[in-house]
Amino acid sequence: MSESDFEAPPIGPDAAGEGAPPGPPPPPENRHDEDDRLKSEFVSEVVDRLHGGDIDGVRSLVEPMHAADIADLFELVGRDDRPPLAAALAGLIDGDVLAEMNDWVRDELIDELSATQVAEIAGELETDDAVAIIEDMEEADQRAVLRALDPDDRAAIEEALSYPEESAGRLMRRDAVAVPEHWTIGQVIDFLRAGEEITTDFWEVFVVDPAHRPVGTCLLSWILRTPRRIAIADVMKREQTLIPVDMDQEEVALRFQKYALISAAVVDQAGRLVGMITADDVVHIIQEEASEDILRLSGAGEDDINEPLPQTVRRRLTWLIVNLGTAVIAAAVVGLFQGTISHLVALAVLMPIVSGMGGNAGTQTMAVAVRALALNQLTSSNSIRVFVREFRIALVNGACLGLLLGIAVSLIFRSTDLGIVIALAMVINNLVAGIFGVLVPVTLEKLRVDPAVSSAVFVTMATDVMGFFSFLGLATLWGLGG
Amino acid sequence: MSESDFEAPPIGPDAAGEGAPPGPPPPPENRHDEDDRLKSEFVSEVVDRLHGGDIDGVRSLVEPMHAADIADLFELVGRDDRPPLAAALAGLIDGDVLAEMNDWVRDELIDELSATQVAEIAGELETDDAVAIIEDMEEADQRAVLRALDPDDRAAIEEALSYPEESAGRLMRRDAVAVPEHWTIGQVIDFLRAGEEITTDFWEVFVVDPAHRPVGTCLLSWILRTPRRIAIADVMKREQTLIPVDMDQEEVALRFQKYALISAAVVDQAGRLVGMITADDVVHIIQEEASEDILRLSGAGEDDINEPLPQTVRRRLTWLIVNLGTAVIAAAVVGLFQGTISHLVALAVLMPIVSGMGGNAGTQTMAVAVRALALNQLTSSNSIRVFVREFRIALVNGACLGLLLGIAVSLIFRSTDLGIVIALAMVINNLVAGIFGVLVPVTLEKLRVDPAVSSAVFVTMATDVMGFFSFLGLATLWGLGG
Repeated sequence: MSESDFEAPPIGPDAAGEGAPPGPPPPPENRHDEDDRLKSEFVSEVVDRLHGGDIDGVRSLVEPMHAADIADLFELVGRDDRPPLAAALAGLIDGDVLAEMNDWVRDELIDELSATQVAEIAGELETDDAVAIIEDMEEADQRAVLRALDPDDRAAIEEALSYPEESAGRLMRRDAVAVPEHWTIGQVIDFLRAGEEITTDFWEVFVVDPAHRPVGTCLLSWILRTPRRIAIADVMKREQTLIPVDMDQEEVALRFQKYALISAAVVDQAGRLVGMITADDVVHIIQEEASEDILRLSGAGEDDINEPLPQTVRRRLTWLIVNLGTAVIAAAVVGLFQGTISHLVALAVLMPIVSGMGGNAGTQTMAVAVRALALNQLTSSNSIRVFVREFRIALVNGACLGLLLGIAVSLIFRSTDLGIVIALAMVINNLVAGIFGVLVPVTLEKLRVDPAVSSAVFVTMATDVMGFFSFLGLATLWGLGG
Repeated sequence: MSESDFEAPPIGPDAAGEGAPPGPPPPPENRHDEDDRLKSEFVSEVVDRLHGGDIDGVRSLVEPMHAADIADLFELVGRDDRPPLAAALAGLIDGDVLAEMNDWVRDELIDELSATQVAEIAGELETDDAVAIIEDMEEADQRAVLRALDPDDRAAIEEALSYPEESAGRLMRRDAVAVPEHWTIGQVIDFLRAGEEITTDFWEVFVVDPAHRPVGTCLLSWILRTPRRIAIADVMKREQTLIPVDMDQEEVALRFQKYALISAAVVDQAGRLVGMITADDVVHIIQEEASEDILRLSGAGEDDINEPLPQTVRRRLTWLIVNLGTAVIAAAVVGLFQGTISHLVALAVLMPIVSGMGGNAGTQTMAVAVRALALNQLTSSNSIRVFVREFRIALVNGACLGLLLGIAVSLIFRSTDLGIVIALAMVINNLVAGIFGVLVPVTLEKLRVDPAVSSAVFVTMATDVMGFFSFLGLATLWGLGG
């Protein structure tokens, strides 16, 4: 392993950390903690050397690192330290490092580079990684980089950029290996061995007809396990999962997961092979999409700890103002019952319990429904069944919680009437939570709105409004405030 | 493609759906909607034929389907239809279908099968898939199946089961292909072609030393692109990402993502090669783990729409009762200020706004922190920076929302004092939300508690309690209730 080739770097005059005597850097196997993250001691060591102007010391620490770890290092140091770190590591930051880097951190770094430098880095990369770097740049910068690329790379990247964002066309590599159907295994092997233009890392060979439409696929392991004289048509698998070039990346990811794919052919509208997508890119997408849903459900949108502050504030504030609107509506419902409350202040004490518990139950149901929708588990075939299921859960939970709270309130406030009212309100609000928790995401999905983005605001509004209304309304009817 | 070989099946006497004339089944390309889910028309067609006793009709509809789609079909039909569907499809439900099936649906189905039948199915599968099926069975059933397996399979599965749940050892395939370092590419190719025992689907060959410890790895595409006389040691990559056999599957998934792996060697404590993990299994894990976090954050735990009702109720109810405890604490805080409220009922009307908005802001911050922790983005190197960032966001958002609400309240309630009090309370509660939104998940992570599971309850408690306390407390100090 290269790590054993690691040598202690020369120690600069200011390289020592707080109070630590100058000495060799920690051995590289100590860079990571048990969870595979860079240790904070290692990060501070790098930062200390950087601040001390010990460029050689920084480089010798970073040089043996994997591209993904160098990318992590940039995310972990402070924002102000990133440009000097990039300067210190000139030559070590290649396309692989940029491809692994958090989008926000990368954009900042790329702003510091010239178009020629970016073009040089993009030129080294596979099309999909180069596109990932270039697609986020501003129009003018993008054009400058494209001009600086060599014509072949430029054509490939421009074509990729012509597909919609987050589509298979952006995600794919264009260097899929294709062979004609009439070849033998021997011919395929000779072609692979001789072909100058063939990419180095691939997992299957696509068999195509004369119009370049895929007719089958052959894993490299099958080729290696078969005698040379056999025809590839006899070895290949004819059924294969084809990815349309304009398919959304989330659907691509679900298809990879569903059919347990390692790589898959991408075809254009005429059914011609135009590229391939590999599982390593999909792993990224799945992680991204699934964790985006967590953020969306909570109203934090596409938030990321590396995003610039003003953008984060704007997005979160917009969402909070929408929520403020629904909170005001809920408060207005309370306002309807001021008379009742002024006669029995205990109602004001107890009402947040009813609304809050409805909110909790609604959030549970909603999260289950949003996840089932995202995984294609919840479809029109079973939505009624799922609805009934959640209704029954809500009934049982509401009855249990209502009973518990009703008895406690009866004892503490010495009022059976108040106990009965809060128990009934709890049952009603749990049913509201169960109904809206399924109905809202399913309806939004039908309307082609992302259920993860806006379900919470509707569900919480329903449980707040109905929590206050049922509790205070029942109390008024029962004559508790009279 | 096999789909074009599809033929219209014989139509049974009772095969017609509601009012539809009997006719050939819908062509198979119409089975899926645009999102790759089975259409509800197709599912009802299957169910109608099943209810009509038209077993041949059911089989002819299902026969051309991919294993993953057959698994989906089982999830989409009602629970009562599953055993008769399984009976109708005897022979078509192989290990691949079971491996693709939702855990809950599979467990139900397996309960219907004899140990010998399960053993027969498990015997066809790769170790990792067989283990996935067997590990969820009850102790006694598991033993019965293991006894019915042939000795080789049994040994492999028993060894896999000896590793901790959700570890690399459970996830790995044991049939990794290994060759000695001194071989040439030609020798490797001859070995692959001749070896009877070699698995068919693999993506890299591991080069091992005499003690069976990996010293390098060689993608099959490199082998195919290299002349036979070259030594494999000159082609292989010496740095490779090794997975310890006891590593948690979530860490395995992060490592695959970080280093963009397609497959990786698994090593035991002595560093010997014991198996390999491939990206298709990891895709599954990532989806699972990421979507579990959504459910955990919302207090729904490991919920799934296919889980039996009593288990779901028990888990959700437990969580709701914990939340009931915190709601009572928050209500008790309101109880401290009953005197103030009875003098100014408007406070009861407005107080849910302050607590609710704090809850929303806290949830945003918490979701961002939980995601960053799960992605290894947030470590001890940058936790203070992230904390400061969230504090600043909270300050700006709190000030904006406070100003907005303060002005509105001053105008509507014709009381500048009330406006000032609610504005101040909003700022305070937003800061509480920002502080607890980061502090709670980071502290839980440090204590080795999953932050996704229990962050919400603490954060919401903090924003509820502090929302009521700051608003009602300030109002009392300000003399609003006097």
